[in-house]
Amino acid sequence: MPYIPLEEHLPGITGLLEYRKETAAPIRDLTQLLLRGESTLTEAEREIIATVVSNRNACKFCTAAHSATVNLLLGECETMDKIKENSNLAPITEKLKALLEIAGQVQISGKAVQFSNIEKAKKAGASDREIHDTVLIASLFCMYNRYVDGLATITPVNPEFYQTLASRISKGYMRSPEGYDHLRKS
Amino acid sequence: MPYIPLEEHLPGITGLLEYRKETAAPIRDLTQLLLRGESTLTEAEREIIATVVSNRNACKFCTAAHSATVNLLLGECETMDKIKENSNLAPITEKLKALLEIAGQVQISGKAVQFSNIEKAKKAGASDREIHDTVLIASLFCMYNRYVDGLATITPVNPEFYQTLASRISKGYMRSPEGYDHLRKS
Repeated sequence: MPYIPLEEHLPGITGLLEYRKETAAPIRDLTQLLLRGESTLTEAEREIIATVVSNRNACKFCTAAHSATVNLLLGECETMDKIKENSNLAPITEKLKALLEIAGQVQISGKAVQFSNIEKAKKAGASDREIHDTVLIASLFCMYNRYVDGLATITPVNPEFYQTLASRISKGYMRSPEGYDHLRKS
Repeated sequence: MPYIPLEEHLPGITGLLEYRKETAAPIRDLTQLLLRGESTLTEAEREIIATVVSNRNACKFCTAAHSATVNLLLGECETMDKIKENSNLAPITEKLKALLEIAGQVQISGKAVQFSNIEKAKKAGASDREIHDTVLIASLFCMYNRYVDGLATITPVNPEFYQTLASRISKGYMRSPEGYDHLRKS
């Protein structure tokens, strides 16, 4: 049971964003800019960074929601599964592998990111802006994961819930006029 | 040296907020709402939560900046020093002690927050909203600390720098028309 009163039909982050809509607005704006805004990283690549960090933080809600979003964006489930097993053996670019190493270090601590991590990413073709955005996306999900788990929000077990949520997230992070009413059905 | 090209006169978070102004805007908005917006927690109490989390993340820039802000808001330096030593022995309310315990658990992981931590805070008079905001402030600073250290930004050693920054932060987190030009003098 959540530590604060949240609407029952709104598990994970969804209930928190409704609980305090004032703080939800800039959280949504930042996520929209970083994960859906103009970038040389694809939306799937940015969602993969979010998923890897959430998985390392053992945040089941965020991992399931963003894994489902990656799968929807890529049109298959294998890539995300292989990245979770071992990103270095997954069918992704060397650049993304290097960026995921940076994101993995950020999950541990900002100080854990070494110059060698950055050098490797730059050699694989990552730009300064891509490195900046990787660090900020990883940091943002360290925030999300703590917010979601620190208040003991509900994690649905039904995979359909995450598919419904992913079809919403894949279109963006802004609040739709109907809020999360479509999730009532799940 | 920072891992990406940042303006030399802008250390710590200040250079990052100038590097990508688009993402800086919602980060500032969220911080302003949480740390300066309407709340039953004082501004000093909210800055203390930010400082304790930054200190536990060993983020020297954020710890120095927010410690200086607490000192400025309280008009003395002893309280913040005592909290850093041992918050349970510091001259603060039982409610703030309990909220700092929650923030300390959030710094470790969202999952580290136990029902007993929440119960203790509620018994000490904390409201649901205060608990929510404590978890979100702690999570936000887990983001900031990783952003600042993950890109190896510069940490000035001169205490005057942080006093100048604190006098700015104490007034709020929104971008002023002159940007950070006043920091050039430091």
